[in-house]
Amino acid sequence: MALIVQKYGGTSVGSPERIKNVAKRVARWKAQGHDVVVVVSAMSGETNRLIALAREIQAHPDPRELDVMVSTGEQVTIALLSMALIELGLKARSYTGGQVRILTDNAYTKARIVSIDEDRMRADLKANCVVVVAGFQGVDETGNITTLGRGGSDTTGVALAAALKADECQIYTDVDGVYTTDPRIVPEARRLNTITFEEMLEMASLGSKVLQIRSVEFAGKYKVRLRVLSSFEDEGEGTLITFEEDKDMEKAVISGIAFNRDEAKITVLGVPDRPGIAYQILGPVGDANIDVDMIVQNVGHDGLTDFSFTVHRNDYQKALKVLKPVLEHTKARGIQSGDKIAKVSVVGVGMRSHAGIASTMFRTLAEEGINIEMISTSEIKISVVIDEKYTELAVRVLHKAFALDQPA
Amino acid sequence: MALIVQKYGGTSVGSPERIKNVAKRVARWKAQGHDVVVVVSAMSGETNRLIALAREIQAHPDPRELDVMVSTGEQVTIALLSMALIELGLKARSYTGGQVRILTDNAYTKARIVSIDEDRMRADLKANCVVVVAGFQGVDETGNITTLGRGGSDTTGVALAAALKADECQIYTDVDGVYTTDPRIVPEARRLNTITFEEMLEMASLGSKVLQIRSVEFAGKYKVRLRVLSSFEDEGEGTLITFEEDKDMEKAVISGIAFNRDEAKITVLGVPDRPGIAYQILGPVGDANIDVDMIVQNVGHDGLTDFSFTVHRNDYQKALKVLKPVLEHTKARGIQSGDKIAKVSVVGVGMRSHAGIASTMFRTLAEEGINIEMISTSEIKISVVIDEKYTELAVRVLHKAFALDQPA
Repeated sequence: MALIVQKYGGTSVGSPERIKNVAKRVARWKAQGHDVVVVVSAMSGETNRLIALAREIQAHPDPRELDVMVSTGEQVTIALLSMALIELGLKARSYTGGQVRILTDNAYTKARIVSIDEDRMRADLKANCVVVVAGFQGVDETGNITTLGRGGSDTTGVALAAALKADECQIYTDVDGVYTTDPRIVPEARRLNTITFEEMLEMASLGSKVLQIRSVEFAGKYKVRLRVLSSFEDEGEGTLITFEEDKDMEKAVISGIAFNRDEAKITVLGVPDRPGIAYQILGPVGDANIDVDMIVQNVGHDGLTDFSFTVHRNDYQKALKVLKPVLEHTKARGIQSGDKIAKVSVVGVGMRSHAGIASTMFRTLAEEGINIEMISTSEIKISVVIDEKYTELAVRVLHKAFALDQPA
Repeated sequence: MALIVQKYGGTSVGSPERIKNVAKRVARWKAQGHDVVVVVSAMSGETNRLIALAREIQAHPDPRELDVMVSTGEQVTIALLSMALIELGLKARSYTGGQVRILTDNAYTKARIVSIDEDRMRADLKANCVVVVAGFQGVDETGNITTLGRGGSDTTGVALAAALKADECQIYTDVDGVYTTDPRIVPEARRLNTITFEEMLEMASLGSKVLQIRSVEFAGKYKVRLRVLSSFEDEGEGTLITFEEDKDMEKAVISGIAFNRDEAKITVLGVPDRPGIAYQILGPVGDANIDVDMIVQNVGHDGLTDFSFTVHRNDYQKALKVLKPVLEHTKARGIQSGDKIAKVSVVGVGMRSHAGIASTMFRTLAEEGINIEMISTSEIKISVVIDEKYTELAVRVLHKAFALDQPA
C-alpha cells in the first residue's frame, strides 16, 4: 500500500466526462489499496477565460485581484472531481490551496511555495478519504490568495508529494511519457521508460512541454519519485524520472534530442577582453528582468572579444534597447543579432562516460550543410544554435545518428 | 463622514460594463468622504451555470462540494470590482467570506452566520481602502467553505453592517425601492419612501422579491438601518426601512398589497376536536422538513373540526404523502387540497390603530365575486387565500380600495 499523489492537467479535466474518467482512474488506485491525493488544474480554457474577463476591466489587471480571480478555476475542478469520486461511492474532500495552507511568498501571479501543512490531509487519508487539492494556488502569511504562475499545478503536485513523503508523484498529461524527441517531428521517436532527473531538467528547460521545469527542480530538491503518464490511456507505465543512472543496462548514451524555437541571439562584437566585461553587458540585461539562457565567449584577439548570449524572443527587442547605452559605454564595435534561430540539444547522462558525442553531433549537422552559430555544453548536454529553418531536419538526423529510434 | 455598506446583486454586476458602473457609484460615495464596504453577488447567471455543471457530475451534488464550487461565483466578482475600483484610482481590496472570517455553522448550502471578524476590514478602511467582500459565503470552524443559500448576499451585507456598526446598509437592486405592490400588476403602484421593519418583513415573506427575508430579520435583530435602491439610476432615495413608525405624518393605514402564488393549501377534514390534534397533524409535516405557512382552525362542531394549512407548492405532493398515515391515525374524514391558490395580504402598521381594515378588504373582494378560502391575520397584516386566477384582480382592487395609488 503506497501513498500516491496524482496531478491532472487542464486537458485531463476539460469536461464533465473527462472528470468522471479521472475519478474512475483514482478509484482503481484506491481499489488496489493505495492512499491517493489528487491535484488538479483548471478545466482547459478556463484560466484564459478568466484572464480575458479581467482584461475587460483592466488592461493590466491588478496582480492581487487577478490571483483571487484565476484561482477560482481550480476551485471549480476540485469540487467537480470530489463529486465524481463521491458519486463512485468513495469518500472525497476538496481543498483550496489556502485550506491546506500551501503557504507561499506574496509574489502575486508567480508565488513560490514556502511550506505546506499536511495535518488535515493526513487525517483525511487516515479516514480512507481521497484528498483533492487545487493546484497552482496558495496563500501568503496574511491569508491573501496567491498563484504559482502557469504550469504551477505540477509544482503543487510535487510539493504535496514532498510534504507528505509520498511514494510517487504521478503527473497525468495528454502524452504518455517523455519521448526521445517530439514525435510530431520524428515519428520514430520512442517513449523512454526512465530518464534521470538531470536529463529531465535539460529536456524540460529546452522546450519539452511535458513537465514544468520548476516542478522538476522541486522534485530533485526533495527527492520526489516522479512519473509522467497519459490520462487518456488505461495502460502504460509512462516515464519514471529517476535519481540514479540505471545500473542494470548499458543504456543509450543519449536520451533525447531537445529543441527550442523561443530564443533570439545577440552578439556584442569587439568588446575589450578584460575582467568585468561579461558583467558590464549582462548586468543591465538582468536588471531589466530579462532571463539569459546560453552565454558564449571565445578567446579574444588583439585585446578584443565577441560576447554572445540568447534571450527569450519576447525579450529580444527589450534586450537590444537595454544594450544601446552598454555599447557606447564599453566601446563595443557593434551588435549582431537575430531571432530566427533554434537551439537543438542532445541530452544524456551517458555522455559523461562516452567520448565522441560532440563530434558525432557536429559531423551529422555538417553533412546536412547546417551551420552551427553557437555551441554550449554541460556535463550532460550539448546545445547548438542553428538557423531556425533547419530545426526539423537537425532533430531528425540527430535522432537517427544517435540511434534513438532503436530500442535501448 | 459615514460608514456605508453597499450590496450589489447579480444583475447589478452582470457584465464588465455594469461592474464599472458600480465602481463609479462607489467612487462617488468615496468622493463624498464616506468609508465604503461593498458586498457583491455572483454575476447574473453564473451561479446557475455552476450548479448545472455540478449536476452533470452528480444529479444531487454533494453539499460540501457544491459550496466549494458555487462560492467561486462571488470570488470572481469581488476581484473584478476591485480591479475596476483600482482602475479608477481608488485603493481597493477583495475578500472572500473565509478571508474576513464570516464564520458560519456547517449547514452546507444554507449556513447561518455566527460571527464576523472585522479587524482586517477596519484596518483597510483606516487606510482609505474600499473593502470588497464576497456575499453569500463563509467558512465553518474548521475552514470548510459554506454558502448561505439563495439571496444570502443580502444577509452578508446586513451582517457586515451590523458587525462594523455601519451607518447604513444599502441594498442595490434592479428596482428603485419597495412598492405598494408589484407595478407589473398595478401600474399605479407607488414607491414607498419608508416602510417599517415589520411591514418589510411581511412584504418580503409574502413574495416581494426585493429583499431576502433573512436579511430583514437580521437587520431587525441588530437594528441595521437598511435602504433599498436601484443600481441603474443615479438619483433616487430608494426606500428606507425604519424601526419606528413615522411620527411626522398620519401616513396611510396600509403600506402595501403583497401576494404569493407559491403555495398550496391542505385541509384535513373532520378530525376530532381535541387537544394535541394540531401537533398530530403538523408534527409529521415538520419532521419531513416541510415549512408550513398559514394555519387555520375554526371552532368545531359535534366534536369534529377542520384543520387547514398552506405549504410551498414544491412540498405539496410530499406533504400529502406524509399525511396519509396521519389520516388513518386521527380517523379524519378526508383531505381537501389544491395548489391553484394565491395568498393576498394587506400589510401596514397603521392597521393597529385603525378599525375596519378587514371589512374593507373582504367587502372589496366580495364585490368582485372573489371567494375567500382561508383567512389569517397578524397585528399588521391580513392574509386571504383565494383562487389563483383572481390574483391580479384582487391585488388591483385592493390597491385602489386602500388608496395606495394616492400620495401618502
